[in-house]
Amino acid sequence: MRKQIVYTTLRIQTRHEAGQLATVAATIARHGGVIGDIFTVRLGERDTIRDVTIETADEAVAAEVVAALGETPGVRVVDVRDPVLEAHRGGKIRMVSTQEIKTEQTLGMIYTPGVARIVRALAERPALAPEVTWLSHAVGIFTNGTRVLGLGNVGTLASLPVMEGKAALYDAFAGLSAVPILVDTTDPQEFIDTVVRISGSFGAIHLEDIRGPDCFFIEDELKRRIKRPVMHDDQHGTATAALAGILQACVHKKQRLADVTLGQIGLGAAGSAIALLALAHGAGRVLVSDLDPASVARVTARGAQAASLEEVMKNSDIVVAATGRPGLIRPDMIRPGQIIFSLSNPDAEISPREALEAGAALAYDGRSINNALAYPGLFKGALSVQSREISQNMMLAAAETIASLAAPGEVVPSPLDLQVHVAVAKAVAECAIRDGLAGTAVWHA
Amino acid sequence: MRKQIVYTTLRIQTRHEAGQLATVAATIARHGGVIGDIFTVRLGERDTIRDVTIETADEAVAAEVVAALGETPGVRVVDVRDPVLEAHRGGKIRMVSTQEIKTEQTLGMIYTPGVARIVRALAERPALAPEVTWLSHAVGIFTNGTRVLGLGNVGTLASLPVMEGKAALYDAFAGLSAVPILVDTTDPQEFIDTVVRISGSFGAIHLEDIRGPDCFFIEDELKRRIKRPVMHDDQHGTATAALAGILQACVHKKQRLADVTLGQIGLGAAGSAIALLALAHGAGRVLVSDLDPASVARVTARGAQAASLEEVMKNSDIVVAATGRPGLIRPDMIRPGQIIFSLSNPDAEISPREALEAGAALAYDGRSINNALAYPGLFKGALSVQSREISQNMMLAAAETIASLAAPGEVVPSPLDLQVHVAVAKAVAECAIRDGLAGTAVWHA
Repeated sequence: MRKQIVYTTLRIQTRHEAGQLATVAATIARHGGVIGDIFTVRLGERDTIRDVTIETADEAVAAEVVAALGETPGVRVVDVRDPVLEAHRGGKIRMVSTQEIKTEQTLGMIYTPGVARIVRALAERPALAPEVTWLSHAVGIFTNGTRVLGLGNVGTLASLPVMEGKAALYDAFAGLSAVPILVDTTDPQEFIDTVVRISGSFGAIHLEDIRGPDCFFIEDELKRRIKRPVMHDDQHGTATAALAGILQACVHKKQRLADVTLGQIGLGAAGSAIALLALAHGAGRVLVSDLDPASVARVTARGAQAASLEEVMKNSDIVVAATGRPGLIRPDMIRPGQIIFSLSNPDAEISPREALEAGAALAYDGRSINNALAYPGLFKGALSVQSREISQNMMLAAAETIASLAAPGEVVPSPLDLQVHVAVAKAVAECAIRDGLAGTAVWHA
Repeated sequence: MRKQIVYTTLRIQTRHEAGQLATVAATIARHGGVIGDIFTVRLGERDTIRDVTIETADEAVAAEVVAALGETPGVRVVDVRDPVLEAHRGGKIRMVSTQEIKTEQTLGMIYTPGVARIVRALAERPALAPEVTWLSHAVGIFTNGTRVLGLGNVGTLASLPVMEGKAALYDAFAGLSAVPILVDTTDPQEFIDTVVRISGSFGAIHLEDIRGPDCFFIEDELKRRIKRPVMHDDQHGTATAALAGILQACVHKKQRLADVTLGQIGLGAAGSAIALLALAHGAGRVLVSDLDPASVARVTARGAQAASLEEVMKNSDIVVAATGRPGLIRPDMIRPGQIIFSLSNPDAEISPREALEAGAALAYDGRSINNALAYPGLFKGALSVQSREISQNMMLAAAETIASLAAPGEVVPSPLDLQVHVAVAKAVAECAIRDGLAGTAVWHA
């Protein structure tokens, strides 16, 4: 049932005549490939060379596409490359100096002897920190590697590409400077103490890929001990993006969230947070299902109702699944007209295509309901007004903003639309100001 | 005796006629200002506006210069700004994505779902890390803020501008990505455990501004426990740059290091390392002086000879001072023809000008003998061949390379000459290969 995606870049040479690209595209489609970006490498007198990246369900399908193109008259596959490996080569982030250092004067001002005056000033007045250091835009992304994507406890080193990806998006989407910090311990208390001890290095703390239930205790303790924003993205970034999708799904159904039945399957970090944030927004009836009774108890204590997987599927208008179990939802479980969010990455509980074929009105996976819609703006907004926390109200404001920016016929906008992050940050900052949180961050160690 | 430097940027309007800039320059010089960078802001029909940055001994001198310019016919000071504060505004470093993220395909490759394949690959083969993560160029700069410049235990937050400065130079000089990590503890063992626990976040560990004698124990322990390069820059970066100066000073004296008497005043982190690195290079006679008997014992045990401050000054051909005590060396202590390196930052034991006036043949302070000459190339070289350490041989190779690049009449080159860092990195990498250290770094946690 795995529905992972393999990217392959084919360098394709065709005769320089009309219809050749159409032939290539048809051949790729016939063999199950989806065409991504196309770059023209050479437009010659007699031939054209293009780099065509395709997405396939697995490597065997990619190989079929290559073979089929090889047998197509006038078409030659010159080279086959792995664009994912290329995108990761040398890492995805880089630290840069904000200014050119080309003169003795610049060197003397940013380094010794000039820097001494700034050091003295900060020692006397810690509140200068956001003005004269990078703390106003520095986010530490902390993980212990115990729950990476849907892949489980792969350890800190293997988690690093995910952390770098988050950091790259922080820059691209919000102009924030994020640093992956790999904390090599599975002991929650040791993790907490380590993060606290170096928390002064960053303006805010983003927690990532930490297994449940440790993640709840860790986040609670860190929020208590660190007087700057702390947020576990797998809980609240996902919940904020999911709530945006749920709110917009209600618009499609022409119903209020208070009047629909929402089903939440899976009560790990993401699932619990989604159910709780929906309840905070006024959801009327939230059915929840999980194999772990403690997880169910934690959420029902705050207003949700326990149910079996089958009951959730049967009785919910909108279903959100976040279980890490690919293929958990069978097509025959879908109720016609239901709205399905199957969020596990990289492999969903049911693919949107299967869900739609089974009668769902709308269906989305983790590629659409992406926490990259939420976390850049949440942190940017909180940092911009020096809030000491990212509160639930700020998450609700972010979710409403994201929902409001969905294009007609969609439930959420694309995170590639930079206006989304600007709008989220603004809504979050305004909420912080309204709630009296602006200026409450503490800068001394 | 403080000789710190104050930078002031004056926006100066003059009549558009010949000789006006000369008048301005003469006025500034007459009142004790040194002119730095000059930018022309406007060249009008009738007047010219320039931003002139001046260096002065203190703010009172800067105020005098401004007053004097105000009284100069045809000259008007339009604005007075603080360029150091401007250079630090918003911090000096920024984390960036190495690639544009503008298409769904890029998003899908660097983030979910594409990243999952890289995660799986790394979990199986940690040795892939330098290829698919940023670890090959990531340096963590760790401090506990206990000995910042010559300012002492100002704490971690106040040390951050220095750490950011180091990181900015890492980018500008060697293309490395360095991150300031503030470890909020003065307990050496707690510091060590914290660094070890997050050391997997970086390809190499740069230790900075940690007080002695803790710094020695901390570095030794971290080198033992972390199988990637670890170096305390205040010791070895300074020692490498200072040895380069000493070697080139010997060239000026037309003597071998083995044949001169070298005096080392102050045996803190820098002073001890300078004496020991000079001995490792074959220095014949090294006189050392420090108020702390334990520090003296540590260095005499490895070949140096104890002496008083006065004995060192009287008997040494080349004197290196690294005491953190501005004005410690009186002009009457200088022996004619002596070569003086007074390295304490931001305020030297004796200013080069005073030393030269007192008869020194050559005199330099920490602005010339700058560890920014050494650390970027040392780390770049070690990382480029995946050495598990920065060995003493690598430091000696770096010092010789730096010395060899000094311009005629100088003892070291400028760190602004990027070829210096390329050459140092190359020498360091070649030394690692020669000594069998290439490929010995360990990437699994």
